[in-house]
Amino acid sequence: MNYKMVGKFLAEILALEAIFMLPSLVISLCDKEYSLSFDFLITILIIVAFSGVLMFLCRKAKMGFYQREGYVCAGACWIMLSLFGALPFFFSGRIPNYIDSLFEIVSGFTTTGATILNEVESMPRALLFWRSFSHWIGGMGVLVLLLALVSMGKNNNGFTLHILRAESPGPDVSRIVPKMRQTAVILYVIYLVLTLINYIMLLLGDMDWFEALCTALGTAGTGGFGVKNDSLGSYSSYIIWVTTIFMMLFGINFSLYHLIVTKKFKVAIKDQELHVYLFIILVATTLITFNIRGNYGGILEAIKHAAFQVSSIVTSTGYCTVDFNLWPDFSRGILLFLMIIGACAGSTGGGFKVIRLILLVKSARRGLKQMLSPNRVEVIRVNGHQISEKVMNTLNIYLTVYVLMMLVSIFLISFDGNSILTNVSAVMACFNNIGPGFDMVGPLSNFSEFSLASKAVLIFDMLAGRLEIMPILAMCSISTYRRR
Amino acid sequence: MNYKMVGKFLAEILALEAIFMLPSLVISLCDKEYSLSFDFLITILIIVAFSGVLMFLCRKAKMGFYQREGYVCAGACWIMLSLFGALPFFFSGRIPNYIDSLFEIVSGFTTTGATILNEVESMPRALLFWRSFSHWIGGMGVLVLLLALVSMGKNNNGFTLHILRAESPGPDVSRIVPKMRQTAVILYVIYLVLTLINYIMLLLGDMDWFEALCTALGTAGTGGFGVKNDSLGSYSSYIIWVTTIFMMLFGINFSLYHLIVTKKFKVAIKDQELHVYLFIILVATTLITFNIRGNYGGILEAIKHAAFQVSSIVTSTGYCTVDFNLWPDFSRGILLFLMIIGACAGSTGGGFKVIRLILLVKSARRGLKQMLSPNRVEVIRVNGHQISEKVMNTLNIYLTVYVLMMLVSIFLISFDGNSILTNVSAVMACFNNIGPGFDMVGPLSNFSEFSLASKAVLIFDMLAGRLEIMPILAMCSISTYRRR
Repeated sequence: MNYKMVGKFLAEILALEAIFMLPSLVISLCDKEYSLSFDFLITILIIVAFSGVLMFLCRKAKMGFYQREGYVCAGACWIMLSLFGALPFFFSGRIPNYIDSLFEIVSGFTTTGATILNEVESMPRALLFWRSFSHWIGGMGVLVLLLALVSMGKNNNGFTLHILRAESPGPDVSRIVPKMRQTAVILYVIYLVLTLINYIMLLLGDMDWFEALCTALGTAGTGGFGVKNDSLGSYSSYIIWVTTIFMMLFGINFSLYHLIVTKKFKVAIKDQELHVYLFIILVATTLITFNIRGNYGGILEAIKHAAFQVSSIVTSTGYCTVDFNLWPDFSRGILLFLMIIGACAGSTGGGFKVIRLILLVKSARRGLKQMLSPNRVEVIRVNGHQISEKVMNTLNIYLTVYVLMMLVSIFLISFDGNSILTNVSAVMACFNNIGPGFDMVGPLSNFSEFSLASKAVLIFDMLAGRLEIMPILAMCSISTYRRR
Repeated sequence: MNYKMVGKFLAEILALEAIFMLPSLVISLCDKEYSLSFDFLITILIIVAFSGVLMFLCRKAKMGFYQREGYVCAGACWIMLSLFGALPFFFSGRIPNYIDSLFEIVSGFTTTGATILNEVESMPRALLFWRSFSHWIGGMGVLVLLLALVSMGKNNNGFTLHILRAESPGPDVSRIVPKMRQTAVILYVIYLVLTLINYIMLLLGDMDWFEALCTALGTAGTGGFGVKNDSLGSYSSYIIWVTTIFMMLFGINFSLYHLIVTKKFKVAIKDQELHVYLFIILVATTLITFNIRGNYGGILEAIKHAAFQVSSIVTSTGYCTVDFNLWPDFSRGILLFLMIIGACAGSTGGGFKVIRLILLVKSARRGLKQMLSPNRVEVIRVNGHQISEKVMNTLNIYLTVYVLMMLVSIFLISFDGNSILTNVSAVMACFNNIGPGFDMVGPLSNFSEFSLASKAVLIFDMLAGRLEIMPILAMCSISTYRRR
């Protein structure tokens, strides 16, 4: 294990976090919340001090970076970011318990959007902004951002590859690896531009500038923290439709936007994952509209709420316009399915990812055929490209670990004595980075009732879900730290 | 596809079914239910006629039997058995709808034990016996029985192997294949002897001979059809403990009994699957006892009900002593876990099987290690034996198809508009051949409220679950029937 290299990387990430806290500091100063400004300042100083010491200790870092360094790097970065990022909530006394503060910021960085706050409207704007901004930072991946910003010296191909593998959502990153750094820059520019367009369109709907900013950041990161207690329930149909469409857009694989920017529009439009993703949204919206048509003023209202909720859940955002926990069980069941499926790989969304579902179905079909004709050899293709057996093996392990971790988590939090649907949907909502679930963790409720032990389990789930399991498990495994 | 060979086999299985109906015919005559005797007689004649015609058409069957013939054979046999086995219920008018009759007998043969009857105590004993006897027939596998009884000519190794693969529960049958026929005979003798001991012990508890017989048959097949409306709720503690222990015994891999009979006691006792199975039962019983200790007269009562229910659910039997649907959600959650896990491979029990869980955990551990050290090569071992990569691949496909089929089934039956827990537990209870679920399909309720379409889905699930998916899917696949 190349500890110094990992340490150097950690120090740089923490320096970046200190910079990210400056806007919140400015907001608190503008709002004359000087006590809060002091809390942010103290936090920033602690981070800078820690980063400086780490940088000094690891100044002689040598190259030599393998997969396990990549995993530990990603895992350690996200944990450190969260440990320090929770401090403003804790110092300000707005969230008196540190585990609760940690839950809130992990929920932010992992773009989950599950909150332990009963009431958000009375929170200072600086803290609300820090919550929503953490979605934006975590959405596209903070490590990727660092890679886009800095060059880690020559011969860094292995380095970037392993970091990217560890942080990026989806089963395969090979297609954007070759020109990794340029691509990271382009992806972040696309991310920024889409967020800006979303922000401007919200402003055009007469939304308050601060609320629009937080909403746009939460939409872009597919996070889901709201600035109102009823999430988006009190906004106009225009705002709701704009958000619906942008949630959908942020759930699409960003490499497709990259293709469109580089004028390969025809390739982008033929993407199989995109087709399945849009098909799922269409079917789910239709079914739910049909099911809840009696609950709202007219069919248009029903479509609006159905489309918004489907888009919000499938992309793992977690905003809501109505209390969908009160919908009939058929609609709630559909939403539960969407929670598992999740968005496209390479988007800011969470969940199992549509492409994995496609690969699983194809793999199951091939497996059945091979059992009938044992000598048959068949490769799996997506968009005409052959998928290697290594990727398929990794997918199988991913599915296995995904199912096992989900079951173990449900078992662990069930000691709290809540309803089965609460436990199942809470774990699903955290593991897939959605936010709200059903019953006790429904859209108008929150996670504050869980015991600290259960919150710790859910924090672990959120991190494991966002980093797609491996980095977090690698960090927990002793063999990672053995010498070769 | 060697249709004539499949046809010949089908004809023999049907002849066997006709013989199996004779006891019910005798019981109906003894009870002077002559109208019912007539229904059974008609059914037997129809079966014999059908079998005879099939035998005649396929008299020139040639050898040549591959895996796909094995699957189609197994699938077709179970479907035919069910289609004809449902006739007595239908002819007698006791279950007026044929789909309902089919549901009942499929639930019997697959040892599920889910019923659509609101009331069983008023049913004629001949029909009750047929229901319970179908558990016993289906428990050990009717095809295996046929293989034990008849010799299909020389050079039949491929034949027996493929049939056994298609019908036997568990990921690997290799260890009992070499002396297949003798082993099948020994297994059935063990099955018969254990059933007899169970029957005698129930009689010693002053149980009515007929009730004891049906209960023993249902326990042996891990089926779960009762002859009373409250299942085993009204019997003495002695009867309940005897049944608890025998359910557990029938959930153990029968090859371990084989080892004990051949005096390899030490090998049997070291079986990893057995250890995990007993550990799961112990932990689940302890947790549930602790959770429900306030609900019953004392700790001993709580242990009794907890142990009985754990044993009943993990072995996929489905008997009950109390309405466990009223237990706290923690206990219900534990039972839901047990539903998925299921019993040991090679037992009469259903579910995912403990050995598969062990293999999955080992495979996940290996996968994680390999991701950290990509050049590492490691084999998976169970009881010191190396598990081939082919078995592991098949297991991955099994897991994938298992999860996908479960999700699709839940989606399909959710159109009925029942609660999520009803849908999830109904599919789990049918797919894993348990019987009762929660909410609308709780232990004191039944499956009669579902629409015919949902019942058809659940019938499919029961068959697919009992035959471990492949034979049923192979039957539905066009490529099975293509010429090579």
